Amino acid sequence: MNSKPNILVSNDDGIEAPGLQRLVEELKTFANVYVSAPYTQQSAVGHSITIFTPLRTYEHKKNGSLYGIAVEGTPADAVKIGVLHFFRDVKFDLVVSGINHGANTAINIIYSGTVSAATEGTILGIPSIAVSLTTFDNVDFIEPAKMAADIIKQMWEDDKINLHEGTLLNMNIPNLPAAEIKGVKITKQGRSYWKDGFEVRKDPHGKEYYWLTGNMVYRDDSTEYDVAAVQNKYISVTPLHFDLTDYRTYEEIKNWKLNI
Amino acid sequence: MNSKPNILVSNDDGIEAPGLQRLVEELKTFANVYVSAPYTQQSAVGHSITIFTPLRTYEHKKNGSLYGIAVEGTPADAVKIGVLHFFRDVKFDLVVSGINHGANTAINIIYSGTVSAATEGTILGIPSIAVSLTTFDNVDFIEPAKMAADIIKQMWEDDKINLHEGTLLNMNIPNLPAAEIKGVKITKQGRSYWKDGFEVRKDPHGKEYYWLTGNMVYRDDSTEYDVAAVQNKYISVTPLHFDLTDYRTYEEIKNWKLNI
Repeated sequence: MNSKPNILVSNDDGIEAPGLQRLVEELKTFANVYVSAPYTQQSAVGHSITIFTPLRTYEHKKNGSLYGIAVEGTPADAVKIGVLHFFRDVKFDLVVSGINHGANTAINIIYSGTVSAATEGTILGIPSIAVSLTTFDNVDFIEPAKMAADIIKQMWEDDKINLHEGTLLNMNIPNLPAAEIKGVKITKQGRSYWKDGFEVRKDPHGKEYYWLTGNMVYRDDSTEYDVAAVQNKYISVTPLHFDLTDYRTYEEIKNWKLNI
Repeated sequence: MNSKPNILVSNDDGIEAPGLQRLVEELKTFANVYVSAPYTQQSAVGHSITIFTPLRTYEHKKNGSLYGIAVEGTPADAVKIGVLHFFRDVKFDLVVSGINHGANTAINIIYSGTVSAATEGTILGIPSIAVSLTTFDNVDFIEPAKMAADIIKQMWEDDKINLHEGTLLNMNIPNLPAAEIKGVKITKQGRSYWKDGFEVRKDPHGKEYYWLTGNMVYRDDSTEYDVAAVQNKYISVTPLHFDLTDYRTYEEIKNWKLNI
């Protein structure tokens, strides 16, 4: 493929997030880039859509010209309204969501707004990739954006973008200088999970409120899994889909007799 | 299993929803029932959790005694705080989410707060079932609650509750008198999807806003799939999991060479 791809970029950290803006700059070196992203931070919204209230949107400008559409809604909303309404005359080759500030590996994937934006792209029939940087530290996103864009460009040029219907890719980049990264590993979703708890506090009026707290419990050693791959200095790329059927259990229970 | 099971009930329509309250009544005929549910309607929140603001909760009373905990948060929040904090001394045998007012089949599963409450139960290591009634009509939920509770009771008594780690069940009940229902079918998640669009309106100040609209596009004829099963008058029960890895694609692409 030699023509310039049309890429819609979204995220869950909001249109002003440096992770998105650095990625947009790098993608523009080889692609036509359109932006439709939430107006504000939307982390841990999962795959939400807004159905009981209408969506408001704003033209987000930079240096006097249109940078993208800011959507008062979720990442999935932003992708839907970008593809179906604002940029409806564009034939998108790819939706890219990110770069998220923080890992989206293992169980975190199901809470992830970043992944949900890519999922929505896939639902709309467009190949989609979620990109996350595995740190909450303050970083400039310059190197990760270059690496992510370079990998996406290779996939475009090698015709690796068009996977099966309903498949998206979930990329996690370790927070390391490019020179220290060992390579790209195709992985499976890890089985690490959060050991959660609630911290109880009292407000000045004596009423209790609760903060969710938790520690990650690590369960995977092999770099076949996303968490272990990034811990071992690889960029992890996991193929995901949204067919949640547990086929192994389906085969085991499909002949259950239940009476009504 | 003969002792009374301990069941946590949640939903996404809120603690006052008749779907939840009818189900609680029926489950109480054979189980110890605890309720932790959102304070307000939370449909289409997907698998959200609240991490950047604290949670507030209220004791919801009925006839002067505690009915359950109302959580100003999402369905997943309600299950987490119910299991880990308010009812932490209870060893739960089951989390039941519902009865939702509206189907949670095919693509809707990934937007579903009802399913996400059951998913959260499973994440916490508790067997979990989501229950939905496939209508938006005003109904009293009496017959569906009896059927759901009766099926859950059979599963409990036949030791069908403990599936694989990470597996939950998603039950959808057609809106029909019990006498017209043909039976219970174990199914797969269907492939029907929404053909979405946005309806543009103008507010009294001339500013545009957007309503999400859509029609379901049906793709499955076989009652092996959830949508077709309920259309053909079966109660559909689908085993789901939250390992989103697309293993078929993983095998195909695991040896990709991508340079950094």
